[in-house]
Amino acid sequence: MLALGIDIGGMSMKFAVVNEKGEIVSKVGKLVTIKEIQEATAIKMVHAIKEFLKEEGFKKSDIAGIGIGCPGTIDSNEGIVRYANNLGWENFKLGKMLEEGTGLKVYIANDANAATLGEVKYGAGKKYNNAIMLTLGTGVGGGIVIDGKLYQGHMCAGGELGHITLDMFSPQLCTCGRYGCFEVYSSATALLRQTKTAMEADKNTKMWDLVDGDINKVDGKTVFDAKELGDKTAIEVVNNYIKYLGEGVLNYCNIFRPEAIIFSGGIANQRENLLRPLREYCKERNWGYSRTPEVQLLIAELGYESGIIGAASLILE
Amino acid sequence: MLALGIDIGGMSMKFAVVNEKGEIVSKVGKLVTIKEIQEATAIKMVHAIKEFLKEEGFKKSDIAGIGIGCPGTIDSNEGIVRYANNLGWENFKLGKMLEEGTGLKVYIANDANAATLGEVKYGAGKKYNNAIMLTLGTGVGGGIVIDGKLYQGHMCAGGELGHITLDMFSPQLCTCGRYGCFEVYSSATALLRQTKTAMEADKNTKMWDLVDGDINKVDGKTVFDAKELGDKTAIEVVNNYIKYLGEGVLNYCNIFRPEAIIFSGGIANQRENLLRPLREYCKERNWGYSRTPEVQLLIAELGYESGIIGAASLILE
Repeated sequence: MLALGIDIGGMSMKFAVVNEKGEIVSKVGKLVTIKEIQEATAIKMVHAIKEFLKEEGFKKSDIAGIGIGCPGTIDSNEGIVRYANNLGWENFKLGKMLEEGTGLKVYIANDANAATLGEVKYGAGKKYNNAIMLTLGTGVGGGIVIDGKLYQGHMCAGGELGHITLDMFSPQLCTCGRYGCFEVYSSATALLRQTKTAMEADKNTKMWDLVDGDINKVDGKTVFDAKELGDKTAIEVVNNYIKYLGEGVLNYCNIFRPEAIIFSGGIANQRENLLRPLREYCKERNWGYSRTPEVQLLIAELGYESGIIGAASLILE
Repeated sequence: MLALGIDIGGMSMKFAVVNEKGEIVSKVGKLVTIKEIQEATAIKMVHAIKEFLKEEGFKKSDIAGIGIGCPGTIDSNEGIVRYANNLGWENFKLGKMLEEGTGLKVYIANDANAATLGEVKYGAGKKYNNAIMLTLGTGVGGGIVIDGKLYQGHMCAGGELGHITLDMFSPQLCTCGRYGCFEVYSSATALLRQTKTAMEADKNTKMWDLVDGDINKVDGKTVFDAKELGDKTAIEVVNNYIKYLGEGVLNYCNIFRPEAIIFSGGIANQRENLLRPLREYCKERNWGYSRTPEVQLLIAELGYESGIIGAASLILE
């Protein structure tokens, strides 16, 4: 079984043919996403897909369908992009238009949801049927897989795992309109802010050396590297970050008691530097203590083209 | 189709025969729960079940199985009560023993989970396939129904919906070992504590009249009654409580985007006095604002014997 996976981003979309093992078996095609009339985008996509499959030597009958991961609020049942702010799309019947244009079955889901399904089926979660993924990037994204299937909630509006308050008394407004959300404390953006605040308060921290005195060079790695050097301020920033992330993770352990929680996004590149203290934090506060099964904390494995594989997994399931 | 539902409580267990509409079609039997050797309890139960079905005129072949709701940590797959603190049970193979003794299929689940399934199938949630229930009692219990089926998590240890932190910086320890849990703010116990604290700080609040000057007479109704009388302190206590409850509810809206959230337990008796301000609070802070489907907030409907009906629903599903 083969599927075409399309990963739509803010600037461009990438696509490739994926087999039932979750492996990419074609080259990776690319189409620039221009803000234009939605219908024009759909027509361009149909053309690009047909050309791509022909060039790569696939017949229509080889392909079980097209899976699409798209940012924003997606109604998977209807194949409609309800709202994708960065793309300027609203109530875009992309699914139906591509189906009519290509003659192939199309399934669209939110990109974080699609990536989660791919990671659980073919990546870090492949031993598990019940798992969630948390993406620690600009925000905190997420996805839920239950009994091997994506759970998206009513009208596919669930799975907003970054938007639970960890501190309802916080003065810090979240983009969602509430205060003190998980995302406000645990995104990559949040860690950068926490790092910079700590650096400004401590002119002697080794973090200044690591960025050549230029605070604009701070990235998600800076504080972890300085921690390895034994820098006290960095240790404090990381410990606090682990607490914030750990509290969100413990919430999801108690709610879902999944077999695994998988981390992706920029901060997940810290791998064991992140997971080791996080496991320790969670173990000490595990619900029911020794009586409750441990949740495996893992790093996503599908890497650079996970978006395409996740999109294809919507069809391959 | 008929099932025997058994609702195990701390002091006694109740049981009845339930039909596929979720209606009790026998008298309600009762057996006192004595802390004794687990095997002796199982033997007593087998005897009581057989006698009961005979007296009520049911043949074994009339009954599809026995559903049991039991407090504590239950492994439904294995039919084992892993740990039920109040009953003194540990690794009790109740399912197998009852199956051998009665010749009927047995399915055991945590009592909050069983009650949730019953309420979604036959009560307030019967129009919905995806719903959660929050029980506002001594603690905050809960259950999750996805696609019409109970979701219990790995080794049935999930669904601990009262144990998500709403304030990770809170000094208030929860029974689960973490700080600032939903339960710490939103249980009936919490509302009583909040009411009493406010009364002690305000000797002029009308709440003192409502309890004849005796703080021990405060119950979950006191503060709502005083609010209706326009008492300022009571209004403040209720507003704060609605905020705490609302923040937990909004978390579950964003995670699950269920079709409905159903409230049961002591505080749910306030019905519209509770739901009206809660709906307002949640509506203002709804994820995605107008773009996201509203979650119905409802009061449980099955009433007094909901535990038995919920237990039976484990078989009737």
